[in-house]
Amino acid sequence: VRGAVADPERIVICDGFTQGLTLVCRALHARGARRIAVEDPCCRAHREIIRHNGLEAVPVAVDEDGIRVEELARHSVSAVVVSPAHQFPTGYLLSPQRRAQLLEWASRTGALVIEYDYDAQYRYDGPPVGALQGLAPATVVYAGTASKILAPGLRVGWLVVPAAMTDAVIRHKVCDDLGSNLPTQLTLARFIERGDLDRHLRRLRRSYRARRDALITALRRHLPGARVQGIAAGLHALALLPEQMNEARLCEQARGRGVSVYGLGRYRANPRSGAPGLVLGYASLAEAKIKRGIQELAQACPSPA
Amino acid sequence: VRGAVADPERIVICDGFTQGLTLVCRALHARGARRIAVEDPCCRAHREIIRHNGLEAVPVAVDEDGIRVEELARHSVSAVVVSPAHQFPTGYLLSPQRRAQLLEWASRTGALVIEYDYDAQYRYDGPPVGALQGLAPATVVYAGTASKILAPGLRVGWLVVPAAMTDAVIRHKVCDDLGSNLPTQLTLARFIERGDLDRHLRRLRRSYRARRDALITALRRHLPGARVQGIAAGLHALALLPEQMNEARLCEQARGRGVSVYGLGRYRANPRSGAPGLVLGYASLAEAKIKRGIQELAQACPSPA
Repeated sequence: VRGAVADPERIVICDGFTQGLTLVCRALHARGARRIAVEDPCCRAHREIIRHNGLEAVPVAVDEDGIRVEELARHSVSAVVVSPAHQFPTGYLLSPQRRAQLLEWASRTGALVIEYDYDAQYRYDGPPVGALQGLAPATVVYAGTASKILAPGLRVGWLVVPAAMTDAVIRHKVCDDLGSNLPTQLTLARFIERGDLDRHLRRLRRSYRARRDALITALRRHLPGARVQGIAAGLHALALLPEQMNEARLCEQARGRGVSVYGLGRYRANPRSGAPGLVLGYASLAEAKIKRGIQELAQACPSPA
Repeated sequence: VRGAVADPERIVICDGFTQGLTLVCRALHARGARRIAVEDPCCRAHREIIRHNGLEAVPVAVDEDGIRVEELARHSVSAVVVSPAHQFPTGYLLSPQRRAQLLEWASRTGALVIEYDYDAQYRYDGPPVGALQGLAPATVVYAGTASKILAPGLRVGWLVVPAAMTDAVIRHKVCDDLGSNLPTQLTLARFIERGDLDRHLRRLRRSYRARRDALITALRRHLPGARVQGIAAGLHALALLPEQMNEARLCEQARGRGVSVYGLGRYRANPRSGAPGLVLGYASLAEAKIKRGIQELAQACPSPA
């Protein structure tokens, strides 16, 4: 479905993307790597995992076309973690030109691209976007997870590893825990074979799309000053706020009204840099609750945003 | 049941003992440890896990009373991995005197004792033997696993960690994979609560005891020169062979006859040292098969052993 080149002997089942990234970091570290680039902003845990494994996490800015490859190319790094189908948390799609640039950079420098394909199953508008790995399977580690489509508690993820690196990643997996929980793997395999996963995803896409639409409608009505981004896919949207707004204070006030939102700063390498914004997860909320939440959020705003 | 001091906030569920030892090694390494003692002979994987995590595995000889604490005390190590209830692979029980010596050593040097309590549920003769951890919960990491009582594919193990070390071990677990498979944990909890685990173990003990008895009978009859050790408990026995026998050749010839046995050398730090012996796992074999296997083994012997 994702257009990945996934020969069985290159697939490593792991305990979610957390362990997947851990294994790749360890394999890279063992062959001398010391610095890995991450998108800025990105999931905070990724920076922590990279550091925890003795590597430096080098932030590289993201714009509306995805990671800025020109900036990436100015750093000396052994790998980069990207989410091309729906960047977290901006929701931007890596543009075709940037994809080509990124793969060209990787092939020129010998660096590895770690493709975190966490919510590609949820695309609501526009044509489907294939995985980067399908274009360069010798350069890209593809990483998927059941956490965003079934449940994080399953701790099931999958890596598709370039042939030259497979043995090293497997060695780390075996030495760390011998393998992932087998009953869950067998159950998931059956779930996929029977077509249940496809049915499940179709149902979720319908439901999440309706929630996304409810979010957009509510934002337009109650927070017309917010610029909504990254809504063609995924489980969350980014609402960029007018420059003068204090993102941290708004989040705090919203929380006081029972609305749990995070500011964009939470995900930046430097929390105080860049334009203010809110990351709004909508997938787990019923439409009425989304509407009420945005109303409360608008009330929390010091002035009409 | 094991007499361990197991407050819930000190228990870390992990992916089997493999990950449990990995987490403890990482936590020790992070606080400056560089050398960990292991019993000699011991499970080969333990030495590999220790080395894989940047530590040196220091072998310390085992005799019929368990690990030789006097020898251990001559090394400078931050921890020691022991299996006091049924040493692997010799099957020896750590004697009461050695237990006291070991804990005294640990308390004097500040070293950690890692108690691998892998098959304590299977005790056939003599009074039950409690866990070492119950005597010194601030000094001992207790480690158990579902691998030897249910199935290795579950990847469920448990650590009980000294209070001073719990946060560090949890931090490594969270950073490595966020947590272990949740459906399995919930299922196992229900299995224990309903008394099913106790019933399961009573059934296994009966069955394994009969298999052990079949093994002893067959060895006495067909290999009267072998000295059988460590049979009061566990899932395997050690058959010490007459000095002149070539353990490796015997294993090879037995394998040629379809009998899969391992020599004691496989588990030693120096495979060519010490008396020849065979490690005979019997728990998974029906009694008739055990009898036939020992007959074949006797045939493989160059001379009456």
